[in-house]
Amino acid sequence: MRQIGEAQLDDIALGAGVLGTGGGGDPYIGKLLAQQSVREYGPVTVVDVSEVDDDALVIPAGMMGAPTVMVEKLPHGNEIVHAFERLQHHLGGRATHTMSLEIGGLNSVVPFCLAARLGLPVVDADLMGRAFPELQMCLPGVFGIDCAPMAVADDKGNASIVEGVTNAWTERLSRSLTVDMGCSSMIALYPMAGHQLRETTITGSLATAEALGRLIRETREAHGDPIAAILERCDGHHLFSGKVLDVERRTERGFARAHVRIAGLDGDAGSNFHLRTQNEHLVAEREGEVLASVPDLIIVLDSETGQPITTEELRYGFRVAVVALPCDPRWRSEAALDLVGPRYFGYDFDYVPIEQRVNGAG
Amino acid sequence: MRQIGEAQLDDIALGAGVLGTGGGGDPYIGKLLAQQSVREYGPVTVVDVSEVDDDALVIPAGMMGAPTVMVEKLPHGNEIVHAFERLQHHLGGRATHTMSLEIGGLNSVVPFCLAARLGLPVVDADLMGRAFPELQMCLPGVFGIDCAPMAVADDKGNASIVEGVTNAWTERLSRSLTVDMGCSSMIALYPMAGHQLRETTITGSLATAEALGRLIRETREAHGDPIAAILERCDGHHLFSGKVLDVERRTERGFARAHVRIAGLDGDAGSNFHLRTQNEHLVAEREGEVLASVPDLIIVLDSETGQPITTEELRYGFRVAVVALPCDPRWRSEAALDLVGPRYFGYDFDYVPIEQRVNGAG
Repeated sequence: MRQIGEAQLDDIALGAGVLGTGGGGDPYIGKLLAQQSVREYGPVTVVDVSEVDDDALVIPAGMMGAPTVMVEKLPHGNEIVHAFERLQHHLGGRATHTMSLEIGGLNSVVPFCLAARLGLPVVDADLMGRAFPELQMCLPGVFGIDCAPMAVADDKGNASIVEGVTNAWTERLSRSLTVDMGCSSMIALYPMAGHQLRETTITGSLATAEALGRLIRETREAHGDPIAAILERCDGHHLFSGKVLDVERRTERGFARAHVRIAGLDGDAGSNFHLRTQNEHLVAEREGEVLASVPDLIIVLDSETGQPITTEELRYGFRVAVVALPCDPRWRSEAALDLVGPRYFGYDFDYVPIEQRVNGAG
Repeated sequence: MRQIGEAQLDDIALGAGVLGTGGGGDPYIGKLLAQQSVREYGPVTVVDVSEVDDDALVIPAGMMGAPTVMVEKLPHGNEIVHAFERLQHHLGGRATHTMSLEIGGLNSVVPFCLAARLGLPVVDADLMGRAFPELQMCLPGVFGIDCAPMAVADDKGNASIVEGVTNAWTERLSRSLTVDMGCSSMIALYPMAGHQLRETTITGSLATAEALGRLIRETREAHGDPIAAILERCDGHHLFSGKVLDVERRTERGFARAHVRIAGLDGDAGSNFHLRTQNEHLVAEREGEVLASVPDLIIVLDSETGQPITTEELRYGFRVAVVALPCDPRWRSEAALDLVGPRYFGYDFDYVPIEQRVNGAG
């Protein structure tokens, strides 16, 4: 058990920018919201999964929608309480804890807005170990835990409880509601008993994000190489370096889709690179050859500062390094790859773990 | 208080075909479902509004979607129980009664499926006195009663509780869910206390539909003129007679839209007529001149038998008489016309009551 205040939120948000793989909404925005809540209501208690009682009622909460919209249409903080309380009402019980839906992007810290307001502890864990674009792409789902009942709420006061017959149906129905709500909504979902957290979530992910953020910050302060530090800490691989030529964006069915073209620089000069994105980066290619794919993490970093760059920020002229980090090993089972592998997203190739791709190519 | 069995359902459904103004789904389908339920579970008790206790919990129920889809994707009867029970759970109480959302089309009798299964009485009233395409077009809404909380359910087991901040938002959100569910869903909505029914609903509408159906049946049996009988009973007006030339249909945003062209016959020979339809007929025109519009009822009848014809049945070659009946006078207030008048549907003219149009033209 520990207290999280403004300073720790700085580091968590920076680390979550890396783990967001381009999506999840700009964690800088989430950080400002969380820090404002902490200033107003006091620091938030974070507990480890081992400290959560077996019969605790844990309700993850966050934002849903296109990150391009989320960062322009800021929540005032009460909508997430609205969503959370609707789900509590539906369940007929009070939550004992909340937690992050995804450790990538602004959803890493949005639960702190809720926790500060309601005086609830946050569990140090998340459902993805990164960010993914769709709600059924949560590890508890792989272990048979229902996303539903789920609450969706917006800034205008609209709210809904969604109970899909599968997690994919819950995603589909809540996505349509989110589109109607203006491509951005606040959600509470995957209600779980404490004992269900142990095997089915990514534990310690707030600590992981915080340590990663601190590492980047301290390496910068020491005039070191933050990109090298990230790769060493996370067993990551440098994919390529270059200059952004073009970002073709479209907001489609509630998702921010993009195709990013990057011209190689330095050792990669003369090569062209492509990123395919649905909120998060899905596939990295060099001259048509796949270098990395979901569920491994593909991350665009500023080549000087190591600052993670979200897809909505990315634009012509940016000098970037693209790196890949291995995902949680549980995402590599056959059942998990059916949910989050490249074929799910419409790509005609099988997932190959990043370390095998790198060794095969090297 | 009276019992409704298979025979009465025949007459109610026939009358509801007239009051459906082309939409609301083919009442023949609703009748088969209701009669099957009555055969299986026994007759249903119908009570007058005056017999309902002030603190009764009345939950109207029915189908939502495009009638073209509703009549092909038949419910098996349990989905409506599913929707109803979700709303009861959300409200934390048991309903004492159910009732029809609209007396036009299949929704006039769908509540009998529910009532038979759950042993609930049906209140002899509805929320429209006809059929309308959108959920906020209910008379209780004009008196400030909320459509929400509302339950939506489908045949697959998906369900949702929708709480729009206005009735128009509840319509919009539940329409998106209905489109995802395959353009047809079962709904429970406008939960009301008994005392709220008295001023805000159309009372006696099941009796009205039954009497109208019986009149048509008996007039046919006596080789009389059923169209003349309908006009006399309902203070209606004959608009024109002709042969259907073309029905241009499209299913759009969950609605069945249509543009019907009719060539005049008999006294109307040489004239062309048009009907504009969104589930229900909205506007009737002769050579560009408006003859009748919402909220008055525009009805297409078989010119020989007086049988009401739904928009999805209508096709080239049908010989039809188009008639108009005055709507409930409460639909003619300024507030009500904002909800259901021609301008709401995008037409650039003000509503003129049918009897004034006829007198003005005559």
